[in-house]
Amino acid sequence: MKAELISIGDELLIGQTINTNASWLGQELSMIGIRVKWVTTISDEEKDILNAIDVAFNRSDLVIVTGGLGPTKDDITKHTLVKYFDTKLVMNQSVLEKVESFFIKRGREILEVNRQQAALPEKCEVLINNHGTASGMWFEKDGKILISMPGVPYEMKGIMNEFGFSKIKSFFNIKGMYHKTLLTTGLGESFLAKELSDWELRLEQEGLSLAYLPSPGIVKLRVSAYEGQEKKEKVDQYLQEVYDRFPQHAFGWGEDTLALAISKLAIERDLKLGTVESCTGGGVANSIVSIPGSSNYFSGSLVTYSYDLKTNLAGVNPSTLNNFGAVSEETVIEMAVGGKKSLGVDYCVSISGIAGPDGGTEDKPVGTVWMAVACNDCVVTKKIKLGDNRERNIQMTIFAALNFLRLTILEKIA
Amino acid sequence: MKAELISIGDELLIGQTINTNASWLGQELSMIGIRVKWVTTISDEEKDILNAIDVAFNRSDLVIVTGGLGPTKDDITKHTLVKYFDTKLVMNQSVLEKVESFFIKRGREILEVNRQQAALPEKCEVLINNHGTASGMWFEKDGKILISMPGVPYEMKGIMNEFGFSKIKSFFNIKGMYHKTLLTTGLGESFLAKELSDWELRLEQEGLSLAYLPSPGIVKLRVSAYEGQEKKEKVDQYLQEVYDRFPQHAFGWGEDTLALAISKLAIERDLKLGTVESCTGGGVANSIVSIPGSSNYFSGSLVTYSYDLKTNLAGVNPSTLNNFGAVSEETVIEMAVGGKKSLGVDYCVSISGIAGPDGGTEDKPVGTVWMAVACNDCVVTKKIKLGDNRERNIQMTIFAALNFLRLTILEKIA
Repeated sequence: MKAELISIGDELLIGQTINTNASWLGQELSMIGIRVKWVTTISDEEKDILNAIDVAFNRSDLVIVTGGLGPTKDDITKHTLVKYFDTKLVMNQSVLEKVESFFIKRGREILEVNRQQAALPEKCEVLINNHGTASGMWFEKDGKILISMPGVPYEMKGIMNEFGFSKIKSFFNIKGMYHKTLLTTGLGESFLAKELSDWELRLEQEGLSLAYLPSPGIVKLRVSAYEGQEKKEKVDQYLQEVYDRFPQHAFGWGEDTLALAISKLAIERDLKLGTVESCTGGGVANSIVSIPGSSNYFSGSLVTYSYDLKTNLAGVNPSTLNNFGAVSEETVIEMAVGGKKSLGVDYCVSISGIAGPDGGTEDKPVGTVWMAVACNDCVVTKKIKLGDNRERNIQMTIFAALNFLRLTILEKIA
Repeated sequence: MKAELISIGDELLIGQTINTNASWLGQELSMIGIRVKWVTTISDEEKDILNAIDVAFNRSDLVIVTGGLGPTKDDITKHTLVKYFDTKLVMNQSVLEKVESFFIKRGREILEVNRQQAALPEKCEVLINNHGTASGMWFEKDGKILISMPGVPYEMKGIMNEFGFSKIKSFFNIKGMYHKTLLTTGLGESFLAKELSDWELRLEQEGLSLAYLPSPGIVKLRVSAYEGQEKKEKVDQYLQEVYDRFPQHAFGWGEDTLALAISKLAIERDLKLGTVESCTGGGVANSIVSIPGSSNYFSGSLVTYSYDLKTNLAGVNPSTLNNFGAVSEETVIEMAVGGKKSLGVDYCVSISGIAGPDGGTEDKPVGTVWMAVACNDCVVTKKIKLGDNRERNIQMTIFAALNFLRLTILEKIA
């Protein structure tokens, strides 16, 4: 079956808003085995909306329309749908009560235009919006479906998650799918794809499907199969194989982050953590505190950007700085050991590097980064080489430092 | 005139890649006064590509196609264009030399499929791609234009910036536009729109146009006019009026950031800066070091997440913490004053707040944040109240702290 998305709104056409609704719907629909074949973005004009719906209904089985359902006069999607489906608006009492209570709760005055949002096409089935005042609408025609929803992402997602996807699955008799996602860091997508080519072939022969989902510093591997206990076990087994093959790079599942993986380890082992940062300027600490409850295991950090503070706060010997430079194995060791002591923690990771664009030398070009972790009975170090983009270097160093800390706690450093 | 964008690629339809090309083109075209009326996303299938181009050419004056120009066999855009424009491929010698040198420079082996990228439609004008191996193509038909470009964003942007926009302007005889953007922080878009309603009316009467461009923590106001010295002065004058009306909130122009505004101030006044952070966990420091050369004015930070470190590193009196709590005016004052001393800086900003989701009390609910700035002859404080989303609270606090530091240096604190 084919699906088509119609996104309505000038803010999308002039690029003021990026069309994340379309990508989210594309992703979620592909997860239940529905292929989106077209995405059409148009402005709030009746002629364009009618034409887009007509074209979509001719070539697709499922049409999802977002946008143009607000209370102001430039929002014309609902009236256009009334025209297209040759129906009329009727006041929906239970929706009206919901809209009124929405305003009462927020202590805001309700206007007639807001009340009119509860007037809905007679021929549609209402999809309740628990997150706003514009209802979703489900139309059926000639065995095909059109869903109209507001363009506000969290309202649209709420309607789809609470009602839309289950109704679509049941209407089109779609079998459920099972997905599992493995998270890796420190390996490029093309390197992984090359290393895993045999594995990928075997996986395809089993009827499982694979997607690489890369983002800066992280590559996710998602394996999917139509439901069934046997397939589910195969998916788990295939991903576990990758996990075991790259123990230094695979760090979690699904929506995990490196900071969350560290959080779990720290709580499980009752550890206190700290950082001493130079080029990342507190970015590693900032990642760690993104996790709720991080105050239970994160004590704090020293951001020693200047030479003086490396000495005064972290206790680095001035002669170490003079002899080896701030970006050196010797310096990061003293930063980690000194920081561990003054922060009073069990594990302290230190980072010093040249983020660029200036400050590189022939020996230590821009992108050279040293890091160390000190614990009660260990000091380990690592050097990485990055490119010449400052923003990206800082971001990649944060990922690398979090992973290095995680691996040290797990005693998985090679 | 009307423009239409056609984005080709399955990765867009299944939501693996967000269509940022369309939003960038929409934005840039609207900046030169061209309105994008449709964006259509389709897969790499000949039938769909031919149909989309045909529809677009019928209703639009300018059609911009991105994607499907890679060297592999699923990239069929070029062959489909040859068919649509009833032409043939001819080897372009100068493009071939460029492609070959691209591979030689990178020490990579050139394959026949790569050489074939230099075979281009006879009927098109080639738009040189200085950033990759797939050329841009400019077709003219019945007074309308179709441009085809690779989907890799920086290659597409390169071709448009170096050749595309100027050729479009000249072909369609488009007058240049002048734009200026004012950056504000700490004011909501709807609040600004309400406060500026009279101003906006006057501005429209002058024939100038306005766009609000909101992003987390920042609202940009862009005013545009067709070129002409008089109009240019009007634009400058209208925006300066807003700047002067909100001196605590307007912080820069164009592509500036709060960290850059601080950087300019610190260099100009020869200041050393530092931070003492609790709930932001080093995020303020991390923003400051995003600016190249920040080591010239940024010394470092103390991330005092635990009570102990607030006392041991920043010198906060334990009785202050006991009597007033970590999130209090008294504590942030001692953090800023103590941090200024131990970091040896001229200005030190301190932050302590409850980011959530837990840790709130009736007196101090989640979202309560105190901050202070200490300088040689000042200590100023500020309290802000945010919502209950941890990630957003941390982000908004970072913005607020950077702005508070900036205003203190400028002596603009009310």
